[in-house]
Amino acid sequence: MGHTYTRAMLDTHPLGSAGLDPNILVTCIEQCFACAQACTACADADLSEQMVAELARCARLDLDCADICETTGRALSRQTSRDVNLIRALVQACVTACKVCGDECERHAAMHEHCRVNADACRRCETACQDLLAVLG
Amino acid sequence: MGHTYTRAMLDTHPLGSAGLDPNILVTCIEQCFACAQACTACADADLSEQMVAELARCARLDLDCADICETTGRALSRQTSRDVNLIRALVQACVTACKVCGDECERHAAMHEHCRVNADACRRCETACQDLLAVLG
Amino acid sequence: MGHTYTRAMLDTHPLGSAGLDPNILVTCIEQCFACAQACTACADADLSEQMVAELARCARLDLDCADICETTGRALSRQTSRDVNLIRALVQACVTACKVCGDECERHAAMHEHCRVNADACRRCETACQDLLAVLG
Amino acid sequence: MGHTYTRAMLDTHPLGSAGLDPNILVTCIEQCFACAQACTACADADLSEQMVAELARCARLDLDCADICETTGRALSRQTSRDVNLIRALVQACVTACKVCGDECERHAAMHEHCRVNADACRRCETACQDLLAVLG
Repeated sequence: MGHTYTRAMLDTHPLGSAGLDPNILVTCIEQCFACAQACTACADADLSEQMVAELARCARLDLDCADICETTGRALSRQTSRDVNLIRALVQACVTACKVCGDECERHAAMHEHCRVNADACRRCETACQDLLAVLG
Repeated sequence: MGHTYTRAMLDTHPLGSAGLDPNILVTCIEQCFACAQACTACADADLSEQMVAELARCARLDLDCADICETTGRALSRQTSRDVNLIRALVQACVTACKVCGDECERHAAMHEHCRVNADACRRCETACQDLLAVLG
Repeated sequence: MGHTYTRAMLDTHPLGSAGLDPNILVTCIEQCFACAQACTACADADLSEQMVAELARCARLDLDCADICETTGRALSRQTSRDVNLIRALVQACVTACKVCGDECERHAAMHEHCRVNADACRRCETACQDLLAVLG
Repeated sequence: MGHTYTRAMLDTHPLGSAGLDPNILVTCIEQCFACAQACTACADADLSEQMVAELARCARLDLDCADICETTGRALSRQTSRDVNLIRALVQACVTACKVCGDECERHAAMHEHCRVNADACRRCETACQDLLAVLG
């Protein structure tokens, strides 16, 4: 598996984690990027299935979720002058995207292994975002 | 000025604008992309100012706002199986980002012309998002 | 149609267009964002077609092209300490993506109007990128 | 550290890794996303340094590199109908971005720990991209 730098970048940032629990923040950032990758791959796997027409909703939600997770992971990677209202609204949108996309993938999990894996990625990211929301204040 | 395809892509989509007012939707998509571009340019202009240290918050919010506007513009460009709760949460986050970023840019508008222009981009995108929220249902 | 700020942001940047012809630069930035939007919409339109299985290659290339055009439009929006080698390599990748995606869309243009429109978006962006490459030095 | 799904998504994709060595592909995807995260964090850390004016070039290249790495990580996550010329041009642009950004960060490594960490992220991503180019054909 790859080497990540989320923790090291946070530890060497002039502001550290700027008042947030670093463990919760690192986990949330990493699950956002991991979910963005998994959703991108799931949308593409849908395109290669013979029954792609039945997976159109899945692919569309994967693409929304990938974009939102990526944007959330990026915003959480910034500690300078964080605006809590902006971050809260964004993380809430990410929770919604992960919930909706995870539910759709779960419907196809028995038939398509990539949907089963991606549903897990969505759930883990949703949980990490909820954990962050709980400490955002 | 460049040529855009937002309207033509919507008019040729198998689902059209999928139940939304096409004028409101097109305007919102185009202002999201325009604001993403302007915020990206404003963050960079901040880096080239001598007093960049005083513009750190501005640059940070520009980067957040650029990412959120772009993700919103992309999600609104998709008409297949739209999830209204997901879209609403995302557009609300976009409103918040444009409001916060526009306010910060306005504080520097008298001193920095690029902040004045970008504040206008943020306001116009915020308004377009509010107009869309009003018809989202 | 929407209001864009590309020209105004460039005119108010401390470095201006940093040695590049502003008309060529503005056109290239705007066509990159317009193509990113059109490709995002075309990939989604593909998902709503009954014959989506025949459009899998089209959708995949649309997604690649959307990401590359967006990244190119962003990088060109930055004038601070431009690295010409980096920009050249990126714009060349954008030319390739627009060419490949435009060719694929053209194959479906007679059958699917959105592919015809998107092929035009790809061609116009490809041309704008070529014009920029010619003056990059 | 976070849990990633890159390998599992590849193993469950209908096309697998579509003719590429899965180990090389997984490593390249993961280092692209890791570098995108690290560069995003480094640009932000620059903004919080007192001597931010001396780090303007670093921040700008960080932002370019973050966008290019993310786009490359996404494109490599798609296995459907890969266009080798497009992927090669994109991965080459990614190599250039990682090289230029890593060099700049290295110049500040003794003074700023986040630049030292990010230089490592860039080097590792550059190497992973070179390894992929070698087997792309």
